[in-house]
Amino acid sequence: MTNDAPRPVDGLVTPRFAAPASFMRLPIRESAEGIDIAILGIPFDGAVTNRPGTRHGPRALRDASTLMRRVHPVTMVEPFKLCRVADLGDAETNPVDVMQTLAWVEDRVAAIRASGAWVLGAGGDHLMSLPLLRGLKRAAPEMPPLGLVHFDAHSDTADTYFGGSRYTHGTPFRRAIEEGLLDPKRIVQIGIRGTLYETDDMAWAEGVGIRILRIEECEELGPSGVIAEARRVIGDEPAYLTFDIDSLDPAFAPGTGTPEVGGFTPREAMRILRGLRGLNLVGGDLVEVSPPFDPGGNTAMVGATMMFEILCLLAEARAAFSAT
Amino acid sequence: MTNDAPRPVDGLVTPRFAAPASFMRLPIRESAEGIDIAILGIPFDGAVTNRPGTRHGPRALRDASTLMRRVHPVTMVEPFKLCRVADLGDAETNPVDVMQTLAWVEDRVAAIRASGAWVLGAGGDHLMSLPLLRGLKRAAPEMPPLGLVHFDAHSDTADTYFGGSRYTHGTPFRRAIEEGLLDPKRIVQIGIRGTLYETDDMAWAEGVGIRILRIEECEELGPSGVIAEARRVIGDEPAYLTFDIDSLDPAFAPGTGTPEVGGFTPREAMRILRGLRGLNLVGGDLVEVSPPFDPGGNTAMVGATMMFEILCLLAEARAAFSAT
Amino acid sequence: MTNDAPRPVDGLVTPRFAAPASFMRLPIRESAEGIDIAILGIPFDGAVTNRPGTRHGPRALRDASTLMRRVHPVTMVEPFKLCRVADLGDAETNPVDVMQTLAWVEDRVAAIRASGAWVLGAGGDHLMSLPLLRGLKRAAPEMPPLGLVHFDAHSDTADTYFGGSRYTHGTPFRRAIEEGLLDPKRIVQIGIRGTLYETDDMAWAEGVGIRILRIEECEELGPSGVIAEARRVIGDEPAYLTFDIDSLDPAFAPGTGTPEVGGFTPREAMRILRGLRGLNLVGGDLVEVSPPFDPGGNTAMVGATMMFEILCLLAEARAAFSAT
Amino acid sequence: MTNDAPRPVDGLVTPRFAAPASFMRLPIRESAEGIDIAILGIPFDGAVTNRPGTRHGPRALRDASTLMRRVHPVTMVEPFKLCRVADLGDAETNPVDVMQTLAWVEDRVAAIRASGAWVLGAGGDHLMSLPLLRGLKRAAPEMPPLGLVHFDAHSDTADTYFGGSRYTHGTPFRRAIEEGLLDPKRIVQIGIRGTLYETDDMAWAEGVGIRILRIEECEELGPSGVIAEARRVIGDEPAYLTFDIDSLDPAFAPGTGTPEVGGFTPREAMRILRGLRGLNLVGGDLVEVSPPFDPGGNTAMVGATMMFEILCLLAEARAAFSAT
Amino acid sequence: MTNDAPRPVDGLVTPRFAAPASFMRLPIRESAEGIDIAILGIPFDGAVTNRPGTRHGPRALRDASTLMRRVHPVTMVEPFKLCRVADLGDAETNPVDVMQTLAWVEDRVAAIRASGAWVLGAGGDHLMSLPLLRGLKRAAPEMPPLGLVHFDAHSDTADTYFGGSRYTHGTPFRRAIEEGLLDPKRIVQIGIRGTLYETDDMAWAEGVGIRILRIEECEELGPSGVIAEARRVIGDEPAYLTFDIDSLDPAFAPGTGTPEVGGFTPREAMRILRGLRGLNLVGGDLVEVSPPFDPGGNTAMVGATMMFEILCLLAEARAAFSAT
Amino acid sequence: MTNDAPRPVDGLVTPRFAAPASFMRLPIRESAEGIDIAILGIPFDGAVTNRPGTRHGPRALRDASTLMRRVHPVTMVEPFKLCRVADLGDAETNPVDVMQTLAWVEDRVAAIRASGAWVLGAGGDHLMSLPLLRGLKRAAPEMPPLGLVHFDAHSDTADTYFGGSRYTHGTPFRRAIEEGLLDPKRIVQIGIRGTLYETDDMAWAEGVGIRILRIEECEELGPSGVIAEARRVIGDEPAYLTFDIDSLDPAFAPGTGTPEVGGFTPREAMRILRGLRGLNLVGGDLVEVSPPFDPGGNTAMVGATMMFEILCLLAEARAAFSAT
Repeated sequence: MTNDAPRPVDGLVTPRFAAPASFMRLPIRESAEGIDIAILGIPFDGAVTNRPGTRHGPRALRDASTLMRRVHPVTMVEPFKLCRVADLGDAETNPVDVMQTLAWVEDRVAAIRASGAWVLGAGGDHLMSLPLLRGLKRAAPEMPPLGLVHFDAHSDTADTYFGGSRYTHGTPFRRAIEEGLLDPKRIVQIGIRGTLYETDDMAWAEGVGIRILRIEECEELGPSGVIAEARRVIGDEPAYLTFDIDSLDPAFAPGTGTPEVGGFTPREAMRILRGLRGLNLVGGDLVEVSPPFDPGGNTAMVGATMMFEILCLLAEARAAFSAT
Repeated sequence: MTNDAPRPVDGLVTPRFAAPASFMRLPIRESAEGIDIAILGIPFDGAVTNRPGTRHGPRALRDASTLMRRVHPVTMVEPFKLCRVADLGDAETNPVDVMQTLAWVEDRVAAIRASGAWVLGAGGDHLMSLPLLRGLKRAAPEMPPLGLVHFDAHSDTADTYFGGSRYTHGTPFRRAIEEGLLDPKRIVQIGIRGTLYETDDMAWAEGVGIRILRIEECEELGPSGVIAEARRVIGDEPAYLTFDIDSLDPAFAPGTGTPEVGGFTPREAMRILRGLRGLNLVGGDLVEVSPPFDPGGNTAMVGATMMFEILCLLAEARAAFSAT
Repeated sequence: MTNDAPRPVDGLVTPRFAAPASFMRLPIRESAEGIDIAILGIPFDGAVTNRPGTRHGPRALRDASTLMRRVHPVTMVEPFKLCRVADLGDAETNPVDVMQTLAWVEDRVAAIRASGAWVLGAGGDHLMSLPLLRGLKRAAPEMPPLGLVHFDAHSDTADTYFGGSRYTHGTPFRRAIEEGLLDPKRIVQIGIRGTLYETDDMAWAEGVGIRILRIEECEELGPSGVIAEARRVIGDEPAYLTFDIDSLDPAFAPGTGTPEVGGFTPREAMRILRGLRGLNLVGGDLVEVSPPFDPGGNTAMVGATMMFEILCLLAEARAAFSAT
Repeated sequence: MTNDAPRPVDGLVTPRFAAPASFMRLPIRESAEGIDIAILGIPFDGAVTNRPGTRHGPRALRDASTLMRRVHPVTMVEPFKLCRVADLGDAETNPVDVMQTLAWVEDRVAAIRASGAWVLGAGGDHLMSLPLLRGLKRAAPEMPPLGLVHFDAHSDTADTYFGGSRYTHGTPFRRAIEEGLLDPKRIVQIGIRGTLYETDDMAWAEGVGIRILRIEECEELGPSGVIAEARRVIGDEPAYLTFDIDSLDPAFAPGTGTPEVGGFTPREAMRILRGLRGLNLVGGDLVEVSPPFDPGGNTAMVGATMMFEILCLLAEARAAFSAT
Repeated sequence: MTNDAPRPVDGLVTPRFAAPASFMRLPIRESAEGIDIAILGIPFDGAVTNRPGTRHGPRALRDASTLMRRVHPVTMVEPFKLCRVADLGDAETNPVDVMQTLAWVEDRVAAIRASGAWVLGAGGDHLMSLPLLRGLKRAAPEMPPLGLVHFDAHSDTADTYFGGSRYTHGTPFRRAIEEGLLDPKRIVQIGIRGTLYETDDMAWAEGVGIRILRIEECEELGPSGVIAEARRVIGDEPAYLTFDIDSLDPAFAPGTGTPEVGGFTPREAMRILRGLRGLNLVGGDLVEVSPPFDPGGNTAMVGATMMFEILCLLAEARAAFSAT
Repeated sequence: MTNDAPRPVDGLVTPRFAAPASFMRLPIRESAEGIDIAILGIPFDGAVTNRPGTRHGPRALRDASTLMRRVHPVTMVEPFKLCRVADLGDAETNPVDVMQTLAWVEDRVAAIRASGAWVLGAGGDHLMSLPLLRGLKRAAPEMPPLGLVHFDAHSDTADTYFGGSRYTHGTPFRRAIEEGLLDPKRIVQIGIRGTLYETDDMAWAEGVGIRILRIEECEELGPSGVIAEARRVIGDEPAYLTFDIDSLDPAFAPGTGTPEVGGFTPREAMRILRGLRGLNLVGGDLVEVSPPFDPGGNTAMVGATMMFEILCLLAEARAAFSAT
């Protein structure tokens, strides 16, 4: 336990609506020096194929995350005691240039990781997982291809869109596998659903060894079955966790780009996440929160809640890592 | 399989937000010649007893249905290969005249059915099921009274409202039974709930033999039990499927006229619908989507998703029929 | 059964959208004379620690409650036949003065109770349970400390906020226990969840004997298990029922001050409520509906539905009481 | 000045958000006995040709009118001292039957007028002006055809819609002229605008002598010029004032059925209304407020404000009448 | 006058809410053969520097434009009689690739223009004016650099954004001038306002000869003065008209990417537009309508109204051109 | 001109939607040392008599203010060059305790002022002007009673509400006059309007010498007349400027607690503000922005724009002061 860890603003002293918003009410830092886990906003939607708006995601998540307190209610994990956590502000992005944004985000992530902090990204669209993974790899080239716990309605392993575009929010994990950032045999996709373009939409993904748990199978297995299968696929090696908010049903998370009816309830998602304690996680992200399609703000609130769950997993993993 | 079947616009080529909206991104046709299944909008809310707005339903459903792709993710049914499907535009309606609308919609449905196409109606309020059934009967008078798979929060078998009005969205199935369009012993109502006017609200419906599955019984039976009971009631004879969006809980489908708390989740509804494959369906509709009460648009999206489910059922039934 | 009981306006005669709104479409009375159950609005949010707006709750609940009919669909209870029920208007409140509001609400409740009617409060924020309990006690000083069935995301037993404020919507039940209004050993809190300020947040509450059923335990027990545990805790002695709308998941009830992701579905809540028939209830309230955060109006509708459920419980309890 | 005049609830004592909503916070009366001016809700939208929702208008206007105080800020008229004013509740309407609604509203208006009170109607769609005028005539058959001050974007003097429908919200004043209720030479229409169906859209209206002030002419004349022209047309004989909320620009009043860009600002409308003091008004209405299209509630607030302006005109006219 | 001109659906026969939506209720054509004026949707927001969403603009404009009728209310121009007008659907766009979209839109515009039709574009973001101008030029290379009537809050003549991006919605007219598509001395920018990045923000634009009418000068000159100045700058040579919806105040048009407080009212804008009759217009567009930021839909309605105004100008210009 | 002045984040480098939000994109400082003008959020609505929500104002204003750039477009004032400006975060407030909040805000303001910075407050409800004025006075006791330029729909000089409450958002300036903080003869209230409680509502204010410019008089005088009158009343002595967002018409600023129809347009308000250059201003605030009633966000944007206008006035005044 660290004594110099930043403490979130206390809601019993300063009301949740007060003070400028930061992730989890943590201090905003320019540098990751002395930080164990850096929460980084990535305000971008330039790779979205349907409804835009995730460029506004980080601010909405900061605002909603002021509702989070300091202790996990079930595991009793105290992430801000286990680790030094801070809000690192936003990565630079260029809303009119996908390739430049990929480069800038990778640079920023690599710099943070190089200074010793792990990264929890707050999207932004799902393509942003790619520069997150690239940045981690660049800063830690010895790291083997990572496993991936992937909550999503979509597999995001398409090859191209719109006559050849290779970099969209529907393609990041195909690129990451091609680049050796991920080990496809250690990828588990949870909550996949929705109509298909063609009957073989999943052929490539399953061909390279990805374990796809469609929502129907998740329902059949129940949370504990999903947890078991995810742990089996990921094993003990390093892994990354990515949470697309559209894995949840759009009644709970309407503010997203490609909603699919029939997703997880937050209670299901939280039960699964809580079952992943002990995985060897080295980074994560929460993506696809689109505030313009979230008039009631519930998507951002659910997103912030899921970020807290992921943060607790990362904090335990990081503390275990630091202890070794 | 037909080679000349209209193909929906491809979302991998033309983004979902692009191009004028039509049902399932299908071509809009004036005539049903050469079509197997006609999707017909019925923009009407003149029979609504509570909150209006379903006159705007067809446009919202067209817009939301551009999120549908071409293959059912579980059954792998490809409706646009099995059948020639088209958007037939909207039936003429008169917002200030219920009786005239009943006549016009019946005329349009009869004409479509007479040219060989089956009809999937997109409401509009639930009274519109009556002219849909009348039109089918007029074009195919040899057809016996139909069975009915009826998803709804309400039985819609009241006699009159407001001092004698016989044609409201609370009365269509009483009228249809009286007119011999439906066989009450082959009607199953699924998801009925909500407070009652009087203790004997259901007396007439149960008296004529309708099988009412209140939501509480549905919960107890589970989807598979509901499916079994629905199949038992309907049997092998021709049947119609009507889906009132208020069968779903208003958290999932707020945009409707008479919401009732405590309804189905979309996952439950989809599981039940998928269990109805093989029924001898000859038509269907999805009704009661009211965009003015749907600020986030989720009701239309859920409605479009259910329409796709129903379309897959109809396409299989139609293909089986054509094969005989 | 009383013959002079006020009857709600009949939705088959006067449409639900018509006529000025009152609770359950009942007549609005200035005095509680001759009334068995008084529904009382308490328009206040001055004790809210996060998002305000519950001052607008009573009007929104009146409006939404016009969707309620007269008979409970499962228990077939007819509250308006069992008891004489009326809308007593709103208690006087002072939006800028918490202490004065506490006094005024207590006065009004005591006056109603003294004239023989039981009270169903419609909030307003959760601090309003305190003057409701005080008013009942003042009018019936012989009453022993009450049991409490408490649906909520939060325990509401904090001591102080913001440097010493003892009267907030996070403290009412600590005050009520301190004042001898409630018997902590007969309190059951259902649906508690959300991150904690500190690991010992629940220490005081559990120390005085409150039975806390976190949402995770509720999920494990199932509705029937929760019902059994609630009945065990409450026993046969007089009890009060308080329903904070934030016990429900914010997808179903977004319009509230301190939403917590992962709550009950309305179906779960209704199943539990229906299992509480026969408890010796002497009053109740529904609180924390905040219309400014409820753009679609669903929170008010769910709130009105829960009020009808509670009213049926109270009506049976009151009728049993009158019969003795 | 009457001593027994009902007084609105005082906002300095009871906050505006508190207490059940009634028009201007006045008591709700079942009978018009002893009342000088009756405010009557008419919840109906069955004659709307475009977007519905005005059936919800009266409740929204009641709610918004709680912001009104007791004294006109410019003329210093005190309507509740000049006259005994009350909220008469809503006229019975049938949402699925235009003709029955016409009859019921006429009956109610005639009964109120027969008991001595003048009527200020709160719509509801604009067809409702017809039964208002019919009811006044039936109760006071000696009354000559009335003049009409008509604020609107549309002339509402079409003959038929949709193949022969004679009773829509686009036809009331043609019917009223045909029935001898209005004197077309004493009709002034203020604020007319928007694209035309045909170049001769206004031919009938101008042919019978209606003075049409298109918005462009209003802008040119300025408020004082409009006032002068309106006073010239109306003269000293009895007249009726009807205010369609769509006379205002939709930025100020978005919640209406057929918005037309480029209308009045509220300041312009209020200046014109205030210039009409002394006209011999015998009734009036405010119509076409559609809450489902008014997410921010501003339309209802503007509507309530215009109702207060009209009420002040009516109160002075009625007081002058009583004094004679 | 052409006899085979497409006629919009008649709102007196088919209600405005009925039938699939197309621009002005015109038929949707794949080819521009035989068409005088083609209305073309350009669903794109990939060049937006602030809030996205204009990719959804064309559908929203189609929907809102069903409120337009057939005759201009002041000039009595009948565009659908003067010219054969059709909805040409949407240009292909690629939401993740600005450069490809520029090429595709240019191709489509050139093809339409080559088949003889003039183009009225419906955006989409303001960068889309660039491929519109390029396409016109490619199909009619003999055309001299055009004049430009430019309604906007912003000059849109910046050089680069975000470290060198040359193609954003803040740069189109600088590019168009550099490419010789526009004659800067015949450009008038109307309604410019808002804070500046630097004191010399306008230096380049004024240096090349653009006439900038800031909103303050417009207010001083009044509509007639603005008209006179615009006519003086443009003269008799061919010109293009571009209307950025953010030229209007955000109270009237909130749904846009970079709103600036203090803009035109629609009445002012319409008065200016109506004063431009007789200009030698050869094309135009209306851009920057962003539906996700337009919860009430008013921006789309104002946009459709302005499109009708521009269409009338184009129709007269085209008819005059054809007559020569 | 100061060389070490904080510079706002540059929108040409970092898009406006990116980076955590602060006032005007300035750095957030804990201390006012070395700062000339401190922008201070005051998140409070505990003194609101009607609709709450201004506690959420500061965050919304921060978010919207990221649209501001660095140079005033008309006066060419560059506030961030003239002065060192920073975001000082929020004052501590207690949402359940008005009196404590008054003390805490006064303390914070006094501390900032004592360290040499002037204060621009961002509310929060209008009662917050009182502790702002008290804090200035405490830190600079030699200061004479200030003049007041007061934009508002309401005079805010009532004595008490709700049976004796002296501290509400309707009373701050009566208290401030009583306490000698303001010189009533140098107060000008601009834009006052709306119905009155009693005919003598303004008697006290006018009795002590306040110059009230009702909206009707403002309209008659025009902006230049209002400016002249304001300058005459204020003279050359030190003055404070308070801007209640409800001085604007609710079409432009719906998100506020007590909207009054018929207010200023933003263009009018900006013209008046720009006419106040050279006044001897020593502080100011912008209050009553209530985000829960601002679904489109326009109120916050207008508020941020007015804050920029006020900031330019303060910066010039401060620079002039420093130069002396």
